[in-house]
Amino acid sequence: MQFEQKLEKYAELLLHIGLKVKQGQDLMIVADLAAAPFTKVVAQKAYEAGLRDVIVDYQDDNITKAKVKLAKEDDLDYFTPFRGRVYEELAAADTAFLELKTPNPSLFEGIDSARVARYTKAMGAARQGYQAHKTNGRVNWLIASVPTVEWAESVFPDSQGQSAIDKLWDAIFFTTRSDKENTVELWEQHVTAMKKNADHLNARNYRKLHYKGPGTDLTIELHPDSFWTCAEFMKEDGSTYIPNLPTEEVFTIPVKTGVNGTVSSTKPLNYAGTLLENFSLTFEKGKVVDFTAEKGYETLKNLLETDEGAQFLGEVALVPHQSPISQSGIVFNNTLFDENASCHLALGQAIGMCVKDARNKSKEELMEIGFNYSLTHVDFMVGSGELSITGETPDGTTEAIFEKGNWAF
Amino acid sequence: MQFEQKLEKYAELLLHIGLKVKQGQDLMIVADLAAAPFTKVVAQKAYEAGLRDVIVDYQDDNITKAKVKLAKEDDLDYFTPFRGRVYEELAAADTAFLELKTPNPSLFEGIDSARVARYTKAMGAARQGYQAHKTNGRVNWLIASVPTVEWAESVFPDSQGQSAIDKLWDAIFFTTRSDKENTVELWEQHVTAMKKNADHLNARNYRKLHYKGPGTDLTIELHPDSFWTCAEFMKEDGSTYIPNLPTEEVFTIPVKTGVNGTVSSTKPLNYAGTLLENFSLTFEKGKVVDFTAEKGYETLKNLLETDEGAQFLGEVALVPHQSPISQSGIVFNNTLFDENASCHLALGQAIGMCVKDARNKSKEELMEIGFNYSLTHVDFMVGSGELSITGETPDGTTEAIFEKGNWAF
Repeated sequence: MQFEQKLEKYAELLLHIGLKVKQGQDLMIVADLAAAPFTKVVAQKAYEAGLRDVIVDYQDDNITKAKVKLAKEDDLDYFTPFRGRVYEELAAADTAFLELKTPNPSLFEGIDSARVARYTKAMGAARQGYQAHKTNGRVNWLIASVPTVEWAESVFPDSQGQSAIDKLWDAIFFTTRSDKENTVELWEQHVTAMKKNADHLNARNYRKLHYKGPGTDLTIELHPDSFWTCAEFMKEDGSTYIPNLPTEEVFTIPVKTGVNGTVSSTKPLNYAGTLLENFSLTFEKGKVVDFTAEKGYETLKNLLETDEGAQFLGEVALVPHQSPISQSGIVFNNTLFDENASCHLALGQAIGMCVKDARNKSKEELMEIGFNYSLTHVDFMVGSGELSITGETPDGTTEAIFEKGNWAF
Repeated sequence: MQFEQKLEKYAELLLHIGLKVKQGQDLMIVADLAAAPFTKVVAQKAYEAGLRDVIVDYQDDNITKAKVKLAKEDDLDYFTPFRGRVYEELAAADTAFLELKTPNPSLFEGIDSARVARYTKAMGAARQGYQAHKTNGRVNWLIASVPTVEWAESVFPDSQGQSAIDKLWDAIFFTTRSDKENTVELWEQHVTAMKKNADHLNARNYRKLHYKGPGTDLTIELHPDSFWTCAEFMKEDGSTYIPNLPTEEVFTIPVKTGVNGTVSSTKPLNYAGTLLENFSLTFEKGKVVDFTAEKGYETLKNLLETDEGAQFLGEVALVPHQSPISQSGIVFNNTLFDENASCHLALGQAIGMCVKDARNKSKEELMEIGFNYSLTHVDFMVGSGELSITGETPDGTTEAIFEKGNWAF
């Protein structure tokens, strides 16, 4: 298959298997500037599929960097309110959202992390309404990644320039099955298999998880009103979409105050333009009471200080160590891929769609079952071939869920 | 002077001599995608000058082209309303607007011009509120151009790629005086000289202009409540800015129904992605009643059909044939430059700032003095070394204004 053909298959995959766009719908593409050539392919495929309007809001790292580096200190707290408001309006008008990311882990290298944190917080606040639409199932959205030289060379240090980019595109096509003739069929099989695992976890009704691995000994309580899900999200109107491609995770939310012990990261985390490596978090009654980091300590500190909710977990996700992404052996330096190669947790905002009947519950009722609120939601990887997880059923029985990093049932 | 230094001088010229930005102000850059590297330089200079926030809204020709080429017919009438609304809001909040253009005259080549016209009209309608802020002096705005390979090669057909781009940058630096050490001083002198010419025209109080040249014999009535101006625009709050760089024109508005005769274009016009060449317009009582075009006839027809006001003139501008841009001998295929090398007229919306006490006049009062309303405003060039213009004073005396293309007084 030619490169252009795989690129078109990838674009169609995002539109039709991911977003599941409808005729006459509008599409908002929030694209990093370097994704412009691929954005063009997506726009063409969208119009060919009968969409009404494709709106593109390009994000330019250089403009962001100029602000974080050069703006007056107080002006870092100002993030133009219109972007968030427009996103919210478009979401309310049933616009599909595609976010095309070209991660640049060294973007803010050498810039005072406190300045980065102020800017990141202001941006998060400005986009809160849009984020709420995402977490509450009122918009079909999808995040996908597009290679840049910098990213590709960080993944394939022995390759350079176009050769590294080609390898990274191949890896993306492989992990998203865009290089196969029967892409749709393969995705249907894959989603069915993941749903089976989620169904099993829900049937066993686990009240507590116990993680054990190198540097990790952690217990996480689960509430009977939460449940496990995967791949497909459901909108209020009952339609479904897949917000991440690739996706290999089965996930739920923890009880906010029911997390105890220590967990160690197993892969680097690219957050706020900085790469965090080999860090650990220690929890008491859900709250982070201690943390370490070999690299990116200040950035981790700033992340935890975003708000009260950033110090608690909002997501628990299981990914078998034998997943294709993991078995490829490639560390993508990119959460979108690496989270699908590894069990992970998230600091910050919990996921509404993991709560039974969430839409009819008030904020107070959600907080009662341990739902965490925050401006942020940051995944970090804790899975490896040495991780085991047991589950405790309501009657106190302990059962294996993961052994040596893979499903145990 | 090094290239980077000239580029920074050009950026500073746009911000400080053009927009005259203020500390703490926000800056909205509406930039064509190819202008991204220069946009970065402007953003850095803006933050260094103490601006609060630089917002960039990139326009991607490829996305526009995908819509015009592939969207369903009826969907061409839909242009997302939020862009215009956001621009309007930002303008109302005293945001400065910089539009960075990278013209591509062949963008819509081969696409049905009726489709282009529908899209262009919908876009114009969506941005009407913002345009009104611009014409009514409620926002400081500026349009500037940035080279692309396509544009540079169309201007310098004997050069290719980077070599053509370098030549075009040199031409831009030259015409904007960004390659001089005393840029600011030169601009002050230049603006003073232009103001003198505008003052002379206003003092003579001409009621009618008569254009004569090859293929041109045209009379234009002027109303006593309109006046000549140049270079600097004044905002409602009394502050000034220069909306075009370079600028060499002294201009006013005609009486909508007071234009009679025929005028022929003297330079190509890049409109709606098409190059119009050697066209003529015949007016009766202000309205275009006949037209010809060697190239771009359909596009000219569509332009005139935009709305009723597109068939009438909204601007009369005088530029000496010996202006530096004209004398450079370069045809820029770009109105921003070519209009400053040549006397020109504009079809469409009249300019509010050329009416005495315009802000206290109702729409009805403005229409009474011959003010033209339209969704569009398109300059076209009519000046040459063979153009003469006479003016008729209120007592019927005829005086020379232009002889052989240059100021006659």
